[in-house]
Amino acid sequence: MPDSFNTLSHPGGRRLKLAIVNGILVTQNRNRQILRDNLLVEDGVITKVGKFRDRVDDTLDATDCIVMPGLINCHTHVSMALMRGMADDLKLEQFLEKTFSIDALRTPEDIEIGAELGCIEMARSGTTCFLDLYYSQDVIARAVERVGLRGYLGWAVLDEEHTTQKGKPLANCERFVKEYADSTLVNPVVAPQGVYVCSDDTLMAAKDIASRAGTFCHYHLSETRREVYDYVRQKGLRPVEHLEKIGFLSKGDVAAHCVWLTVNELKALARGGVSAAHCPTSNMKLASGGVAPLPEMFDEGICVCLGTDGCSSNNSLDMFQEMKTAALLQKSSRWDASVMPAQKTLDIATIGAARALGAEREIGSLEPGKRADIVVVDGRNPAMTPTRLDNIVANLVYAGPSKAVRDTIIDGRFVLRDRQIVCVDEERIVDGAASAVNRLLSV
Amino acid sequence: MPDSFNTLSHPGGRRLKLAIVNGILVTQNRNRQILRDNLLVEDGVITKVGKFRDRVDDTLDATDCIVMPGLINCHTHVSMALMRGMADDLKLEQFLEKTFSIDALRTPEDIEIGAELGCIEMARSGTTCFLDLYYSQDVIARAVERVGLRGYLGWAVLDEEHTTQKGKPLANCERFVKEYADSTLVNPVVAPQGVYVCSDDTLMAAKDIASRAGTFCHYHLSETRREVYDYVRQKGLRPVEHLEKIGFLSKGDVAAHCVWLTVNELKALARGGVSAAHCPTSNMKLASGGVAPLPEMFDEGICVCLGTDGCSSNNSLDMFQEMKTAALLQKSSRWDASVMPAQKTLDIATIGAARALGAEREIGSLEPGKRADIVVVDGRNPAMTPTRLDNIVANLVYAGPSKAVRDTIIDGRFVLRDRQIVCVDEERIVDGAASAVNRLLSV
Repeated sequence: MPDSFNTLSHPGGRRLKLAIVNGILVTQNRNRQILRDNLLVEDGVITKVGKFRDRVDDTLDATDCIVMPGLINCHTHVSMALMRGMADDLKLEQFLEKTFSIDALRTPEDIEIGAELGCIEMARSGTTCFLDLYYSQDVIARAVERVGLRGYLGWAVLDEEHTTQKGKPLANCERFVKEYADSTLVNPVVAPQGVYVCSDDTLMAAKDIASRAGTFCHYHLSETRREVYDYVRQKGLRPVEHLEKIGFLSKGDVAAHCVWLTVNELKALARGGVSAAHCPTSNMKLASGGVAPLPEMFDEGICVCLGTDGCSSNNSLDMFQEMKTAALLQKSSRWDASVMPAQKTLDIATIGAARALGAEREIGSLEPGKRADIVVVDGRNPAMTPTRLDNIVANLVYAGPSKAVRDTIIDGRFVLRDRQIVCVDEERIVDGAASAVNRLLSV
Repeated sequence: MPDSFNTLSHPGGRRLKLAIVNGILVTQNRNRQILRDNLLVEDGVITKVGKFRDRVDDTLDATDCIVMPGLINCHTHVSMALMRGMADDLKLEQFLEKTFSIDALRTPEDIEIGAELGCIEMARSGTTCFLDLYYSQDVIARAVERVGLRGYLGWAVLDEEHTTQKGKPLANCERFVKEYADSTLVNPVVAPQGVYVCSDDTLMAAKDIASRAGTFCHYHLSETRREVYDYVRQKGLRPVEHLEKIGFLSKGDVAAHCVWLTVNELKALARGGVSAAHCPTSNMKLASGGVAPLPEMFDEGICVCLGTDGCSSNNSLDMFQEMKTAALLQKSSRWDASVMPAQKTLDIATIGAARALGAEREIGSLEPGKRADIVVVDGRNPAMTPTRLDNIVANLVYAGPSKAVRDTIIDGRFVLRDRQIVCVDEERIVDGAASAVNRLLSV
């Protein structure tokens, strides 16, 4: 690959001027404008949308292409890409037993190669940013920076009696959060795993770490009916009721799943300023029962975002597909085809997700001043045809565009260009992942 | 593109010997064997699975690839690919009004270009055969033969007072069925549109045409709750009860949707030998309510197959995606992750679908004597990694392989080779489709 192929990606080098020309811009700005126009990127930032005469270092021709903000995956366990197809069609208990047994064997090298694999899968399917929940986020951070994704990495925190982490989860988390405080691509997050493995003390200590570091908490919440009812039996309150009572809920937190919630719990989340990361494929595949109440979340003013969950329960990190599944599940369960329309669905995967991450001023739309997290989709792919201004949002949500993703730019750098992964050796990662799985399953 | 690139596809020319080597064969044979082995195709037919020393004209290297029988889409309206993204998020009445209003304007040229577009989309996403329901099937047949798909084309039959067809639907259908009786790729079918537009006389006349031509009937059945209850109010019987009473149900028929059926109706379909084409995406997107009772269909011994429905209600012809959605919907609605496992889901899109079409001896698996309808999927695509013998079926159903489809061979001819559409000019079709839509929407 010639060096000029990725002039914008020299690590540590000066970032140059890139023009993206002749595309159809799905801006996701306040007015959700769709424009046939050009885009200028300087030093990792979108500086102009419209006509300009700047001399540039590199031009990306986006004729007949859709240019859009990168998708944001608000709940995953990226490193579990390694465990794709290892635990399918199992009831939840068997599923957890199988995934935990493989997980316990993993070395840091396995976690790193799994994270690299997940990152290139996301870049190839139009995702530029993700929120992760896992231990060993220091290892995952290296993969994220190498591939070039934007990662909000939540270090899993839980009671010491439940953990397989070396050392103390809270201390590990705090160390990680401090270490990555100033990173560009990595945003450290505190991730209390769930109320079923976190005492009140652990939860409040997690909140305290997040608060002192100026970040937020990310946690699993009310994914299955059983977990909620077990909790009620034990504590006398539903999970969100208890979390509000102890003062845990905090503005900016992101709770994953949020399936089994009452309207009163939704109101509590709204009061607390907690966002909900909906994971429809995972919920459906694991048969969590019920459906996350998105219309009521919107009614209560909760910021809703979307996540794929990990590859052992999905088995894909394809956010385009996740958007479609999210829309289908709401329409189907409400017997109303007008629920969860395409524009609203695109919103929760872009600008709404940015808001959930507290990054609405940095990412989530194509506007001057935003970081350049941009995806270019081939509008001439037969699966996307016809591509028109009046059906483009529907096509992005319903037509399956991940197969048509051509370029992915993150923080002004190409991660995927003309369908080629740029910064890392994809062959090495695919081979490494296969070897790691062979070793794990032969133990 | 060099002539040698598609040595097997010279229209009318001698079909040569093709070896597909070093792949992982998902045979879908009786034992569902998965083999690391080679495949020999001669004159459009699979002649050997295993080691062979034959001299061949062409060799396809499938190292690290999955070689599988082509997917079979058992309910669509291929030509509506042109209407992708034109009628989304609408309640059913508005949806029908909008699609019918555009549909009524279409010329034969529009129908043909729409069919070509749908056919290349299917070839690119691993579908080699489809069952269509539409008028003007003579026009669609030309597109099917040109692109090189295998089409079971059902000419829509309905009462004359309801039709927009020129001439009489029954006569048009009979003419088409006779005309294409001896075609290789086109299999003519009789398609009474649905009980709501077909009198008993029309239904029985359709059955008679099918019977005399040695083909079967394909029809919409019990898609929405409303259509069933309107029918009950009018006739005093549920649709399947009435169809059994008048003697319409026939062995080999394929009924699409089959959502709102009682167990007694399922038993009647089973007695009649009627197969059910499940269309989960379309049902969810149009919010038909309810979920087709697949477990009970299997219990009753009904042959179940899978369809995307048309692009105005999906908006994709991606059968890999349809498999995933089918599995997710059953698991989710039954609160049981073990329902609709990956192997069963792959079955209804391959060998089960072949059985539904009465073509189990011709297609649906990789076995000597079957027609060579073969798809090659890149197992090194990051979204498919790791690819192993023990997770390969799960990956095909859950990991989103349509982005990894590399080659599609139909009746021994390459339709897609190394991600390039072979027999037709894809650029012409994409441009033609865009122009046709521009014209239709400017009327």
